[in-house]
Amino acid sequence: MIDYLAHFQSTLDQLKQERRYRVFATLERQAGRFPHATWDGPDGPRDIVIWCSNDYLGMGQHPAVVHALTEAAQSMGAGAGGTRNISGTHRAVVGLEHELADLHGKEAALVFTSGYVSNLAGISTMAKLLPDCLILSDALNHNSMIEGVRAAGSDKLVWRHNDLAHLDELLARAGNRPKLIVFESVYSMDGDVAPIAGICDLAERYNAMTYIDEVHAVGMYGPRGAGMAEREGLMDRIDVIEGTLAKAYGTLGGYIAGKRAVIDAVRSHAPGFIFTTALPPAIAAAATASIAHLKTSQAERAGQQAAVAATRKALLDAGLPVMMTDTHIVPVMVGDPDLCKQASDLLLERHGIYIQPINYPTVPRGTERLRITPGPFHDHALVDALAGAMVSVWQTLGLPLTNTRTVSREPVGWVMAGG
Amino acid sequence: MIDYLAHFQSTLDQLKQERRYRVFATLERQAGRFPHATWDGPDGPRDIVIWCSNDYLGMGQHPAVVHALTEAAQSMGAGAGGTRNISGTHRAVVGLEHELADLHGKEAALVFTSGYVSNLAGISTMAKLLPDCLILSDALNHNSMIEGVRAAGSDKLVWRHNDLAHLDELLARAGNRPKLIVFESVYSMDGDVAPIAGICDLAERYNAMTYIDEVHAVGMYGPRGAGMAEREGLMDRIDVIEGTLAKAYGTLGGYIAGKRAVIDAVRSHAPGFIFTTALPPAIAAAATASIAHLKTSQAERAGQQAAVAATRKALLDAGLPVMMTDTHIVPVMVGDPDLCKQASDLLLERHGIYIQPINYPTVPRGTERLRITPGPFHDHALVDALAGAMVSVWQTLGLPLTNTRTVSREPVGWVMAGG
Repeated sequence: MIDYLAHFQSTLDQLKQERRYRVFATLERQAGRFPHATWDGPDGPRDIVIWCSNDYLGMGQHPAVVHALTEAAQSMGAGAGGTRNISGTHRAVVGLEHELADLHGKEAALVFTSGYVSNLAGISTMAKLLPDCLILSDALNHNSMIEGVRAAGSDKLVWRHNDLAHLDELLARAGNRPKLIVFESVYSMDGDVAPIAGICDLAERYNAMTYIDEVHAVGMYGPRGAGMAEREGLMDRIDVIEGTLAKAYGTLGGYIAGKRAVIDAVRSHAPGFIFTTALPPAIAAAATASIAHLKTSQAERAGQQAAVAATRKALLDAGLPVMMTDTHIVPVMVGDPDLCKQASDLLLERHGIYIQPINYPTVPRGTERLRITPGPFHDHALVDALAGAMVSVWQTLGLPLTNTRTVSREPVGWVMAGG
Repeated sequence: MIDYLAHFQSTLDQLKQERRYRVFATLERQAGRFPHATWDGPDGPRDIVIWCSNDYLGMGQHPAVVHALTEAAQSMGAGAGGTRNISGTHRAVVGLEHELADLHGKEAALVFTSGYVSNLAGISTMAKLLPDCLILSDALNHNSMIEGVRAAGSDKLVWRHNDLAHLDELLARAGNRPKLIVFESVYSMDGDVAPIAGICDLAERYNAMTYIDEVHAVGMYGPRGAGMAEREGLMDRIDVIEGTLAKAYGTLGGYIAGKRAVIDAVRSHAPGFIFTTALPPAIAAAATASIAHLKTSQAERAGQQAAVAATRKALLDAGLPVMMTDTHIVPVMVGDPDLCKQASDLLLERHGIYIQPINYPTVPRGTERLRITPGPFHDHALVDALAGAMVSVWQTLGLPLTNTRTVSREPVGWVMAGG
């Protein structure tokens, strides 16, 4: 007879032995003070600076977003009160779907409670509705996409990450059956970008559908913040664009956008959409305000890009092993799970800098890293403090510094006013 | 070569032919005026009364809940800014988990973005962690539980709905392997209640774990609103209690509560928990306020029970085919999908009463119904208007009225003050 509690405890002990047991840092961010926050550390509350947030542009504290949220809650109440079908479709979520369809130049959009559920429900439902569908999935796709592929129960082939030749080969072999290519635009751990145009070329040549995950790009790339496909002028060549409202837009929820028949079919068939309570009006209103703001304002995107450039330069100048990327993601390699955790702990405890260690299984073993996401509110003083703290931690832990120079102190012009 | 768009369109056409295509009613509820709302009908906005909300107690408009939400948003911003592991664990969600553990008398609780994800992640992760686990699932379990069972990939057996003898038989045959019994306390479409004590007896006899879904009970049953297991004095005999924050608590999200090792194992292994953004601080604060209020206030529960009794009596007196239940759910049978949809449409268009039709696949064919959920804000005038409107619609459609008497007009005492 199994001892259930002892068994569950043993799975935890194993994680601890493998140094994979996660301890969450409890934080309280203060609107108007991002990226500063209070951390509930072992010695009590302490002021720290967050350098690993996915609230990439600080929109979670934008006055227009907070105002939309509180106003909607005061006028419409806290929750939606039902599934979309049973009294839960409110004007705010309908308005949000219109805003999203417009953002991506698509006929329709559908909102889910999270980006995770968008991918799980979107991919699995599309594939299930297509007879004998073959899913072609990039090797580094996010867990939510992998779960979507798994839930579809369709045949699947995994193509080597961003490798067009391999995708071509698999498509050529697939024949005339329905095919769905699923991939991301920005891969969040390495910060690299998919060859979107090349994937569209192949999809058109072989009559495959395309499904792109833009969660680490929406709000941040393209003249209206619609993502990498917008920046590259490729939105109309992608069948379904999936995005999140919980990262650059600073709120909660996920969505897909595409042709009306596709979106309506997912709406009508996806259990993960049908059997769950709708997003609250306040969250939908806040997300709509955030999208609308970032459709016209370039300040946040420009500020982020400048902060990213300055951070990368400061860390490189300090001799830190920065992994070069074309995006806003600045990984600094450690290559060992224990040292990565220790570096993170020292940064937090000694320097008040919070960067969560990224270990296996989120990244492959041996590529453990600190993943830094500079945003428009990380000013030059914070960048300097970060570089100095990291050098100190690297020295404490005996980690290699390739080329220690003085940390750059040139004034930089990206600091955002207000907000 | 498949024509993708034509194919997706054909799946929609088929739903329309089968009268299963769903059209969502767009609403705007006004805090302080529930269950009144504005409906965006074909002739423009119109004031209506909602009789099918899962905001069962109207907590979505409770001043303490709305205040907690807006205050948290103003002080902490709109979103959480990350997954729980990567900068997304905030004081509000930690406080909510403490509140939930206390509510259910359990060592720990874990919050998810929805009840749907709670079930999907909770059931599948527990079963995957138990070697050679057999899941025993009630035949009428909700889709989210079915998806959890499916995602587990374990062996499963479905026991006849609420049938203890059948469960006993299946457990006896299962032998010594790990076993997980998953069931609901209140089944939302028929409004019936599980034999919880009998299930606990069997679980103890056969050394099985128990997982109860209390989403249609939390807030509404038990002296502190912890659900049916609390009312029956059985919480300590259940291993995992799953609940929602999006129905009686009026906000968004779901959770599980249980022994620390079990909850920590799910926290550490469930992809649907790990790889998704945390609930916003404002939502967590609002949910905490709602739970705390319903731990001590009996007014909402008493008001709901009185409204349910009065509604049931009024509809029965009017000769309508009310399905008797022991809970707050009042199904009125129609037994035909077209007539059910027409009854709902007539109620809305002619009488300004919104009750969504419940058709296949949510309920078996031939049991199509209107599912009415009276709450503490449905006063005697609204109950009378409902009964009168339903009789009129039944007569228009030629549906049978068993025993048409004058609609009860006795004054009733459950009308809530304020709020």
